[in-house]
Amino acid sequence: MLKAKIHVFLKPSVLDPQGQAVTNSLHSLGYDAIRETRISKYIEIKFDENDEEKVSKQVHTICDKLLANPNTEKYAFELEAVRD
Amino acid sequence: MLKAKIHVFLKPSVLDPQGQAVTNSLHSLGYDAIRETRISKYIEIKFDENDEEKVSKQVHTICDKLLANPNTEKYAFELEAVRD
Repeated sequence: MLKAKIHVFLKPSVLDPQGQAVTNSLHSLGYDAIRETRISKYIEIKFDENDEEKVSKQVHTICDKLLANPNTEKYAFELEAVRD
Repeated sequence: MLKAKIHVFLKPSVLDPQGQAVTNSLHSLGYDAIRETRISKYIEIKFDENDEEKVSKQVHTICDKLLANPNTEKYAFELEAVRD
């Protein structure tokens, strides 16, 4: 079995209002040293399949078609062999 | 400057309806090998501070008080030195 560990994050040029809200909250709680907060998604998908090349291709397609918005987001992933 | 790389994820015993929805979508798209999907948050916070021990303590407090729901979620983080 393979586990895909996928990060889907906003492109650096895209504003992150949710992250900005967290930064503001933390400043008002007194955490003055905080410069920037970026929030993104982390997705783990378990595949009942051991062929890394095949799963890698599928994950690319899944990210392109479902998980990431190609206009504003990028993604990166790695595969890990896991026991059932 | 230090960057905290924080994962906030549902406890394994907690149902992940958003992940289940993604699994269902992927099954209906023909990805039959997919067994389970779990979705979590990944948060990066940049601190204008180089004292790892001090930042580590702050991140624990921030996760406990703001980012993670102690009833349903757990968190893990690491610190990375970054240039401005």
